[in-house]
Amino acid sequence: HIDLRSDTVTQPTEAMREAMYRAEVGDDVYSEDPTINRLQELAAHITGKEAALFVPSGTMGNTIALLTHAGRGQAVIVGDQSHIYRYEAGGASTLGGSPMYVVPTHPDGMLDIDAVTHGIADESDEHIAATALVCIENSHNRCGGTVLGVEQIESITTLAHDRGVAVHMDGARVFNAATALKVPVSTLASSVDSMMFCLSKGLSAPVGSLLVGEAAFIRRARRMRKVLGGGMRQAGVLAAAGIVALEQMVDRLAEDHENCERLAYGLADIPHVQIQPDQVVTNILLFSLEHGEQQPFSNSEIDLFLSKAREHGVLLGRMGEKHIRAVTHAGIEAEHIERALTGIRKVLQEMRPA
Amino acid sequence: HIDLRSDTVTQPTEAMREAMYRAEVGDDVYSEDPTINRLQELAAHITGKEAALFVPSGTMGNTIALLTHAGRGQAVIVGDQSHIYRYEAGGASTLGGSPMYVVPTHPDGMLDIDAVTHGIADESDEHIAATALVCIENSHNRCGGTVLGVEQIESITTLAHDRGVAVHMDGARVFNAATALKVPVSTLASSVDSMMFCLSKGLSAPVGSLLVGEAAFIRRARRMRKVLGGGMRQAGVLAAAGIVALEQMVDRLAEDHENCERLAYGLADIPHVQIQPDQVVTNILLFSLEHGEQQPFSNSEIDLFLSKAREHGVLLGRMGEKHIRAVTHAGIEAEHIERALTGIRKVLQEMRPA
Amino acid sequence: HIDLRSDTVTQPTEAMREAMYRAEVGDDVYSEDPTINRLQELAAHITGKEAALFVPSGTMGNTIALLTHAGRGQAVIVGDQSHIYRYEAGGASTLGGSPMYVVPTHPDGMLDIDAVTHGIADESDEHIAATALVCIENSHNRCGGTVLGVEQIESITTLAHDRGVAVHMDGARVFNAATALKVPVSTLASSVDSMMFCLSKGLSAPVGSLLVGEAAFIRRARRMRKVLGGGMRQAGVLAAAGIVALEQMVDRLAEDHENCERLAYGLADIPHVQIQPDQVVTNILLFSLEHGEQQPFSNSEIDLFLSKAREHGVLLGRMGEKHIRAVTHAGIEAEHIERALTGIRKVLQEMRPA
Amino acid sequence: HIDLRSDTVTQPTEAMREAMYRAEVGDDVYSEDPTINRLQELAAHITGKEAALFVPSGTMGNTIALLTHAGRGQAVIVGDQSHIYRYEAGGASTLGGSPMYVVPTHPDGMLDIDAVTHGIADESDEHIAATALVCIENSHNRCGGTVLGVEQIESITTLAHDRGVAVHMDGARVFNAATALKVPVSTLASSVDSMMFCLSKGLSAPVGSLLVGEAAFIRRARRMRKVLGGGMRQAGVLAAAGIVALEQMVDRLAEDHENCERLAYGLADIPHVQIQPDQVVTNILLFSLEHGEQQPFSNSEIDLFLSKAREHGVLLGRMGEKHIRAVTHAGIEAEHIERALTGIRKVLQEMRPA
Ligand SMILES: [Ca+2]
Ligand SMILES: [Ca+2]
Ligand SMILES: [Ca+2]
Ligand SMILES: [Ca+2]
Ligand SMILES: [Ca+2]
Ligand SMILES: [Ca+2]
Repeated sequence: HIDLRSDTVTQPTEAMREAMYRAEVGDDVYSEDPTINRLQELAAHITGKEAALFVPSGTMGNTIALLTHAGRGQAVIVGDQSHIYRYEAGGASTLGGSPMYVVPTHPDGMLDIDAVTHGIADESDEHIAATALVCIENSHNRCGGTVLGVEQIESITTLAHDRGVAVHMDGARVFNAATALKVPVSTLASSVDSMMFCLSKGLSAPVGSLLVGEAAFIRRARRMRKVLGGGMRQAGVLAAAGIVALEQMVDRLAEDHENCERLAYGLADIPHVQIQPDQVVTNILLFSLEHGEQQPFSNSEIDLFLSKAREHGVLLGRMGEKHIRAVTHAGIEAEHIERALTGIRKVLQEMRPA
Repeated sequence: HIDLRSDTVTQPTEAMREAMYRAEVGDDVYSEDPTINRLQELAAHITGKEAALFVPSGTMGNTIALLTHAGRGQAVIVGDQSHIYRYEAGGASTLGGSPMYVVPTHPDGMLDIDAVTHGIADESDEHIAATALVCIENSHNRCGGTVLGVEQIESITTLAHDRGVAVHMDGARVFNAATALKVPVSTLASSVDSMMFCLSKGLSAPVGSLLVGEAAFIRRARRMRKVLGGGMRQAGVLAAAGIVALEQMVDRLAEDHENCERLAYGLADIPHVQIQPDQVVTNILLFSLEHGEQQPFSNSEIDLFLSKAREHGVLLGRMGEKHIRAVTHAGIEAEHIERALTGIRKVLQEMRPA
Repeated sequence: HIDLRSDTVTQPTEAMREAMYRAEVGDDVYSEDPTINRLQELAAHITGKEAALFVPSGTMGNTIALLTHAGRGQAVIVGDQSHIYRYEAGGASTLGGSPMYVVPTHPDGMLDIDAVTHGIADESDEHIAATALVCIENSHNRCGGTVLGVEQIESITTLAHDRGVAVHMDGARVFNAATALKVPVSTLASSVDSMMFCLSKGLSAPVGSLLVGEAAFIRRARRMRKVLGGGMRQAGVLAAAGIVALEQMVDRLAEDHENCERLAYGLADIPHVQIQPDQVVTNILLFSLEHGEQQPFSNSEIDLFLSKAREHGVLLGRMGEKHIRAVTHAGIEAEHIERALTGIRKVLQEMRPA
Repeated sequence: HIDLRSDTVTQPTEAMREAMYRAEVGDDVYSEDPTINRLQELAAHITGKEAALFVPSGTMGNTIALLTHAGRGQAVIVGDQSHIYRYEAGGASTLGGSPMYVVPTHPDGMLDIDAVTHGIADESDEHIAATALVCIENSHNRCGGTVLGVEQIESITTLAHDRGVAVHMDGARVFNAATALKVPVSTLASSVDSMMFCLSKGLSAPVGSLLVGEAAFIRRARRMRKVLGGGMRQAGVLAAAGIVALEQMVDRLAEDHENCERLAYGLADIPHVQIQPDQVVTNILLFSLEHGEQQPFSNSEIDLFLSKAREHGVLLGRMGEKHIRAVTHAGIEAEHIERALTGIRKVLQEMRPA
């Protein structure tokens, strides 16, 4: 199988397995796991923040951030296409009573600035939950791996900070964004109050994410992690793999981007595939299928396409109502891209769209 | 003052005051207040539902409905312009951990059906909160008092019920909607699972709203009312006024609508006022101000306009970033409309827009 | 019927009905109801606090207080016999994610000081929710209307304040406590951070309670009231009755206490009744029934007793597993006490306990 | 150091490290991690339940269980000495609006049956949150590792099930309980609706716990795990160690119990130590210190004792206000017990208690 469903399917590398095998560990609930401590220091250093916290998932990292920034009844502004709003099962609203105020997301992953401006509320009107936080996502999953540059980020953080509101960046794939933008991650993180990033996606570690921010914020986040059940014991075995991920797996993300671009241009040559390959900038691409001009595949036709692609050894995912998503990652090489294109071409020939 | 800020400013009538004075009361926490019981029976009868519950406010009625339909972590679909989403301070998300999924509202107050269709989630994907409820609003406050007809309502309820999802109607002003549509309220309520309506707006009672639905739903709602602190003791004094509201104040709503239409057409004749008077169907209108084509008044100019109007004895409110709202109600007669128009005309002359 | 179930059954007086009839009202959501404003000022004045907020029920007043003092995840210390813990359906924990830490209540209604001392937690241990608030109750319902004197209150407030923790007093019947102690209510309230008291119990107003505290606290409480749905419109009709309650009904509470004491001593003379009449200090008494020494009535025997008493025109309530509660209030005169005693005596003769 | 603070400090064994190194892994969010699946099947088999779910911590396992059994506003009955109530930072109340009703715990870790009986509430009284769940703990940490036998467990489950209430067992150390009772874990789990047990304590795995129950319950629990952020990716690396824990580390728990008993009897011989060694049945013991009869060490004296013990190479923990806790585990051999006793004896000689 050529598994393009997600970069979460990445397998730990041999170096990670050895690091787990040898990991020096302690009880992290007592803050005594030296490998966790080392990973947290490394994460803070790389992102340019004071402190970091290891958490078992990106969802938990985001939820901790929201609940630490926003008290009960304080609103969080999220983009309508954001992972936090759409794929974290209610998260901060379900667990912590922080309502979400939803603003449009532009196709490049950027929040609509006007909507954010008007959406930020203070405590003057008792009908309206006061805003505590704005969330951005970089790279942006549902927009097809698009990236926010420093100026875009700062246009949000300046606006928010002027109004006394914090900004959290869901940087599950921020190393992909930094790679695409050719800037250090710390540059992208510099103006946000907190950021979460994942070790288990493009960076190929088996488990874990980091939440970074000011030391006082991370202290409070650590208490929230405990409530959520994210306090683990000898988690240094995971952290050991995470350190390898940060030290050895960042540079190779550019390859994933090249492969994704290769796949995008290849798809653009296949009849019935709709894609804008010049907008593919990281390791995620979205495409759609149509019979002819403005005649999109039906829901069941998309499902059929996906199951036939699976039969041809190509695993793809759906994104929203009409898009198919492909994600490149470690283990997907140029040759796999060619085979995937061949498979997809065959499937569409078999389906003989009108 | 001619107070057009809201129909919530209505004063109790003499008949209501007398009814309150004479009200037979008991302890409603023991369900022993005969006047409350009579009001609840009357409300159920008028709306064609099995049972009703008296609550101290429309916000509480809506919040009880959401929390009774949707458990913790179950999503509620709301319109982006709805009162429940925008003016109830987070409500069900803040208090009960029911996240909101937000869909576009059309200018007539109708939810986007496609967005509702795609927004309803079942329990198959653990990333996404399963949907328990869809909320509609009729008449629609923020859309300018627009109404949903029976077919519109049923297009939502059919869709929702087919997917096992309930529908709640925020009918704070449903008597206005029914008046405009020339149908009984029970017709508008027939396909929804629950509805809240207010006694204290156009119907002029001092305090109170009713939540209606099936008997089993209302029994659970009653428990939720207690948690929220809405269980009152000898509230029959309020119910007595509410009964007068339902018996004496419904028929006169048509006058409010006529006055609102009169105001709308009058405003349409005033330079710099932007309004579509043919879309004014109940007792609420929205207008905006502009210097010339596409040159809207700034935020501070709108504020200045409102404070000058107040000096001229006309109280108006803001709605969203650019609209001014006027609401007609008992106590506002045709002559007040003329005086209000005169006042507004003068203010705009004084302001000498470019 | 002689209704001794609760002082909540009190009916509004003629003066209250007239006040409601004449009440000058406005929209309290705009803070424009002059009668509400007058009641709030009066309540603040009487209790010696900066500000007051009118709420539809004692439960809402307490819940607002807890949620305003304690954020999500911050603990509230409550007595195991307290109304807040036992009779408010989960309140702050259900709605606001503030867990309760439960300490023993002494028979006089006082919290166990050692348990409070050890129960207060700061943020040092991430396993334990930090304490934001301690709640006391005065007079104490489930302990049989017992009262806390100033020194008892201050022993709690001093302890709490030294640890940076606030104290809320559930003073649903604080006017009874003040009457029994022959001190002003303001004396009892002076060291607590907030207090709720009810107009609808001994003071006989139909609906409503007040939450009092510092101005900044009440501003935040007002926002919480809106979320809970306690923001009412022309609630001045209720406030008018409340003003009468505070001006005319406080002095007569001593009569209720005399009647309660009369009932207690009368009960003590009836065979099979267990009561300590010298501990009855306000308008609530508890008694139990036994066949002989240490042979308490069974659960179904108590139910039978209550239903037979009802047949004899005496309404009583249960409190906990073994106690029966009687509450005196306006409308219960000495003669009713005598008739109630006669009725109870007859019931016990009919039941012929072993 | 001889670390007797907790069995959470256990280190992964060589066999676990090798298993992690070799683990076959997949993306568990897609349920495609074969090692996770194998661990979950093994856990279900050993405990005699239909299904199991791997979670990152015992706290998360318990919290998922509570939130899955108890909806918002439904009460959970917990013991006043239970880990769930005291050491999980509010858990289900903070995150899910499920209030806790607290009952006394007997010294053997058993809940007070009368208090549970009276504490279970149905939906008849709107003042009282209806009960959804009763929690028990086995072995019982704060009671000193005491165990509940099958009859004790069934006395609770029979009572609860008769009232339509579920029972969850916090079996963080249930393998210790089963070892002490010489019964299979499945026997202890047979009548409870759900159970959580930890791999990371006596069983020495680095990270992870299992929640077990019926298949439908576990499906719902899996959704709750996602909300809480406990969905991990290639967590098979942890599960591999967990399988070793279940296959190789259960039998040796008896050694920990012998060492704990040895430590208990040794402590009993040391002047100023108060302990009941015959009540030590698993791997946890509690003792206190006193100058003489009824003259307990002060708070600061206990702290001094602990820090001096640390200087002598013996790490101990506090439990509650007056107890010191010692826990034996893999890596603590008979010789360490002797050295610990020598160290403690020296410390007490140095402190020269009165
Ligand atoms: Ca991975
Ligand atoms: Ca009104
Ligand atoms: Ca018209
Ligand atoms: Ca009353
Ligand atoms: Ca361990
Ligand atoms: Ca033994």
